[in-house]
Amino acid sequence: MKLYYAPGACSLGIHIILEEIGKPYELGQVALKEGAQHKPEYVAVNPKSKVPALDLGDGSRALTEFPAIAAYLALSNPEAGLMPKDPLGQARTLEAVDYVTGTIHPHAFTRQFRPNMFSLREEDHPKVVEQARGNAEKFFGVLDRIWAGETWVMPQGYSIADAALFFVQYWQVKRVGQPLPPKVERHYRAMLERPAVQRALEQEGLSA
Amino acid sequence: MKLYYAPGACSLGIHIILEEIGKPYELGQVALKEGAQHKPEYVAVNPKSKVPALDLGDGSRALTEFPAIAAYLALSNPEAGLMPKDPLGQARTLEAVDYVTGTIHPHAFTRQFRPNMFSLREEDHPKVVEQARGNAEKFFGVLDRIWAGETWVMPQGYSIADAALFFVQYWQVKRVGQPLPPKVERHYRAMLERPAVQRALEQEGLSA
Ligand SMILES: N[C@@H](CCC(=O)N[C@@H](CS)C(=O)NCC(=O)O)C(=O)O
Ligand SMILES: N[C@@H](CCC(=O)N[C@@H](CS)C(=O)NCC(=O)O)C(=O)O
Repeated sequence: MKLYYAPGACSLGIHIILEEIGKPYELGQVALKEGAQHKPEYVAVNPKSKVPALDLGDGSRALTEFPAIAAYLALSNPEAGLMPKDPLGQARTLEAVDYVTGTIHPHAFTRQFRPNMFSLREEDHPKVVEQARGNAEKFFGVLDRIWAGETWVMPQGYSIADAALFFVQYWQVKRVGQPLPPKVERHYRAMLERPAVQRALEQEGLSA
Repeated sequence: MKLYYAPGACSLGIHIILEEIGKPYELGQVALKEGAQHKPEYVAVNPKSKVPALDLGDGSRALTEFPAIAAYLALSNPEAGLMPKDPLGQARTLEAVDYVTGTIHPHAFTRQFRPNMFSLREEDHPKVVEQARGNAEKFFGVLDRIWAGETWVMPQGYSIADAALFFVQYWQVKRVGQPLPPKVERHYRAMLERPAVQRALEQEGLSA
């Protein structure tokens, strides 16, 4: 099994899940800033030119899309207890993962980190970034209000949703330097205490 | 069970899944164009102000996020056979659903239908729309190249991934008037033959 990732990208969430599971895997770094995702070598791995991608080592096409990779790892490693076993518990976990990957990631952070994707004019970029910061505050605020668990996202305990939430929290605190609302902040602190999170950060050359 | 939807919105995919399952459910229309998603009545249902949302009728918060709702309906109605039973089959199904909801929907279609979200200036909108049309061609092209099934997305047979793919196909053909690549077009035609698809379209007042 080999995870294609970029340091500090959303693939960090999958990296954490692999560390929580604790079975052997390889890491393959993709130099996003140099455009390696568009080179034939990586397009052969993932024609969508994105990380994360997980090569399952079985000769099939690498598995892509964060929620699908996370669900696969949870479902195929039931002993790691990374997802409830009942349909509704699994759906609620996916709901939390998808809010991160489908809403918070693109509309709060991709907008800040790559404003050129959201405005054709450089002089408009500060406004795009400002709107995106407002989105981040709003989205984390929604999470705080609907928080159903104690420390972890799911009332049932630690899950793949926690690893998903962590990468956007890390961006908000470390890359943007903005605060998190109380329950979301408490969750972030608890994540930083987990050895799997510490190992993933260290392996990606990131500070805790 | 009650599905909150808007005619012709992405909620159409969930509507089709409910029709495939064939158990009783209610429909609640949300007038997106009039901003009903931001009114207190709907915010109490879904604080994220989006459709689809599925009220499970059990007193809990309505389930949101297309992939989570679709997975829930498949997992809790195993007799409908809307998803493979093994972890990898489930993950591949989610991968296809997520490519539609996380990439094709926002970056090909939301960009065309609401260019103001992707550019602050009205005079830039034609350019944004043009780029988004290029994205649609590219994304459907990726799907065509990695197509693993026969008629349906999954080699194992009809699944929630087919219902997800349908709503963006419908937009491409009916709202934008652009063609689909061969395998994706064949899939679209096969979907239009399904009674569940026909019923969902008719109930939303849409032409087949
Ligand atoms: N839909 C994909 C999105 C992944 C994604 O946006 N990855 C970013 C890194 S955080 C990426 O690869 N960006 C490279 C690029 O867009 O060129 C998923 O859920 O995995
Ligand atoms: N992440 C959501 C996105 C759903 C979504 O974008 N829904 C659109 C309709 S296609 C919507 O409700 N738009 C209303 C708005 O943005 O105001 C999901 O997967 O369900």
